[in-house]
Amino acid sequence: MQRIEDKFAVLATDNAPGQEGRQKASDLGNLLRGEPIPGKPVDFSHGDVDAFEPTPGSFAAFSAGVESGAEQAYTVYRGKEDIRAHLAERLAGFTGAPVAPETELIITPGTQGALFLAVASCVTAGDKAAIVQPDYFANRKLVQFFGAEIVPVKLDYLSAKDHAGLDLTQLEDAFKCGARVFVFSNPNNPAGVVYSEAEIDSIARLAQTYGATVIVDQLYSRLLYDGYHYTHLRARSDAPHNLITIIGPSKTESLSGYRVGAAFGTAALIDRMEKLQAIVSLRAGGYSQSVLRTWFAEPPGWMQERIGLHQSIRDALLLRLRSVAGLEARTPQAGSYLFPRLPALAVPHPTFVTILRQQAGVTVTAGAEFGPHSTDSIRFNFSQDHEAAVHAVERTCALIERYRK
Amino acid sequence: MQRIEDKFAVLATDNAPGQEGRQKASDLGNLLRGEPIPGKPVDFSHGDVDAFEPTPGSFAAFSAGVESGAEQAYTVYRGKEDIRAHLAERLAGFTGAPVAPETELIITPGTQGALFLAVASCVTAGDKAAIVQPDYFANRKLVQFFGAEIVPVKLDYLSAKDHAGLDLTQLEDAFKCGARVFVFSNPNNPAGVVYSEAEIDSIARLAQTYGATVIVDQLYSRLLYDGYHYTHLRARSDAPHNLITIIGPSKTESLSGYRVGAAFGTAALIDRMEKLQAIVSLRAGGYSQSVLRTWFAEPPGWMQERIGLHQSIRDALLLRLRSVAGLEARTPQAGSYLFPRLPALAVPHPTFVTILRQQAGVTVTAGAEFGPHSTDSIRFNFSQDHEAAVHAVERTCALIERYRK
Repeated sequence: MQRIEDKFAVLATDNAPGQEGRQKASDLGNLLRGEPIPGKPVDFSHGDVDAFEPTPGSFAAFSAGVESGAEQAYTVYRGKEDIRAHLAERLAGFTGAPVAPETELIITPGTQGALFLAVASCVTAGDKAAIVQPDYFANRKLVQFFGAEIVPVKLDYLSAKDHAGLDLTQLEDAFKCGARVFVFSNPNNPAGVVYSEAEIDSIARLAQTYGATVIVDQLYSRLLYDGYHYTHLRARSDAPHNLITIIGPSKTESLSGYRVGAAFGTAALIDRMEKLQAIVSLRAGGYSQSVLRTWFAEPPGWMQERIGLHQSIRDALLLRLRSVAGLEARTPQAGSYLFPRLPALAVPHPTFVTILRQQAGVTVTAGAEFGPHSTDSIRFNFSQDHEAAVHAVERTCALIERYRK
Repeated sequence: MQRIEDKFAVLATDNAPGQEGRQKASDLGNLLRGEPIPGKPVDFSHGDVDAFEPTPGSFAAFSAGVESGAEQAYTVYRGKEDIRAHLAERLAGFTGAPVAPETELIITPGTQGALFLAVASCVTAGDKAAIVQPDYFANRKLVQFFGAEIVPVKLDYLSAKDHAGLDLTQLEDAFKCGARVFVFSNPNNPAGVVYSEAEIDSIARLAQTYGATVIVDQLYSRLLYDGYHYTHLRARSDAPHNLITIIGPSKTESLSGYRVGAAFGTAALIDRMEKLQAIVSLRAGGYSQSVLRTWFAEPPGWMQERIGLHQSIRDALLLRLRSVAGLEARTPQAGSYLFPRLPALAVPHPTFVTILRQQAGVTVTAGAEFGPHSTDSIRFNFSQDHEAAVHAVERTCALIERYRK
């Protein structure tokens, strides 16, 4: 039996994005070089919803939900019927395959809530689950929390050119050695790369062959940059029989404060997710569900403008970062994460993350959060005020030079 | 190893409050007697927030949260610092013992979220947990979901007079046979009875003696009727070393649509709860946390008025119910649940619950949801429009007579 102390040991959140404020002040003493670099502090651990505001109409939709009273406060656990009907249609349109609102869709407390329920619904103690390295840290933690074993699959995102870089041999080996679940984010968090059509079809074929369940977190799939193509696994002809797709309006649409998301796919898994939601939080916040009425229904041109603004920040930051000798950065194809690999430094990389916050007012997420092979990388969420972000990255570059080995 | 199908089998929600709309239409065919009784449908499965509206200022507090932007959208996982500081002071005042805002308090997605995190933080596979019968159905489901075994402890609420009626010998036996966790609601859901000071002190003493962790769900403890006294376990001199108290504004304050609650107590358990919250839903909805600024800070007289209105509905319903021969109902001391035991009927009691909905437009929760010894009882949440509730209970009484054995 797994001891409860061990269950929780894998859930350390000290370095998780947004938790920096709870860290004890570090005594960096004689490691520090030079003086602090002044500048407006930027927290790249998450997007800035003051710089990129919530979608137009979202607050009005929430208010209307409160106004409508009891029927919106107490919905069925999987979410209000008419909102699911609306959403199913839009999600079907976006992903290119039908979604049955009654049986194949659940509204959740954010995409995090969707991911938790999805993993819990197909992973239990003693199972094996294939997890990409690097990938969103919760994937690994969720699998471990339920007492299952991780089988890592490497993503060689830095070398790959026109695909994400998934090691398909390792994925097949994972299935061969007994993994029955594959969890991955597309676009990849933290690397911002999009899986190619060929990669998605290989994942589909392997999942079919080995009878594996696939959970794909498509949180950032709407924020797709010029020149790239996105492939929805669920719309492929040989999509896995057991498949859950996850998406939410917390990032691109800046609606994180409302805490709503959605999962859709195999009805039997959605049923399990609803049963579990009943004891986890009953339902996604009733009034917040109303905000989903505005989702995939933004004003014309709004999304294009948002994508353009992000693309220009991306390019400005890449320009600065690539001026640093020895730094490697792949151009993000979607989403708002940049995940450069830093050159060798005179201090350990996790210490550099602390120094960066103390000396430059720049908060980033340490690469170690995303897997064991990316400890020399740092993640920026560049959904920020353009000028402030550029200046913060310039300070970052200056500190990399200062601490270079 | 527990099979995942078995894990989810214990989570059936078909008869859970609020899920009635998802049931397939039952063919009651030749069981039905007589014609439907007309009247305004009343859903007693939960309180009606149209009849008892959210606390004054709650929507304004939410709006201010949205207005304040990023700092309210992305809080640390355990909830925004200044809101925790405000809340800790009020909760300390209410319960009569200090609460350290930094270490002993977490804001959760409703009290359901608090209960999930609390149980998950001290129960794991192979453990034993003492559970009251009858009690809130999620207590049992949560313990079973984590692979632990339930040790039932009987609550003889119908016979007890000036106490709740907990079988303390059974509780001690549960601890003797290895239960290391005790979960209970006070006031009891569904029976509406409050544990006496002597009962609370016995629970404290037994927990101390056997080193047990206690989770007490005090969701309805503010809605206390005339002539009754409430004892806060956490303020007793011999309170258990490991103790989590749960409360939220979803019921008395009608803020369920915002989905926020709180858990407070032993710092090491709150730490675990935060780590788990990070992978379950990250945080309680950021903007919704703002609503807690109004909690325990209602306008003078508001709570007294709300209690008085509920007390008069309670008394009006009890008067009708007690006119039915063979029906037993204890007077609720707190909260808005009434849990009468029905006389013998010509149809099974769960079938009667369906008939009641079909023939009288009255939705109640079947007693079987709360434990195996209360299948002949039904639960009313009487936080409803007074007149509509009285008429619905009159229709209920008429149908009990019609289906009497």
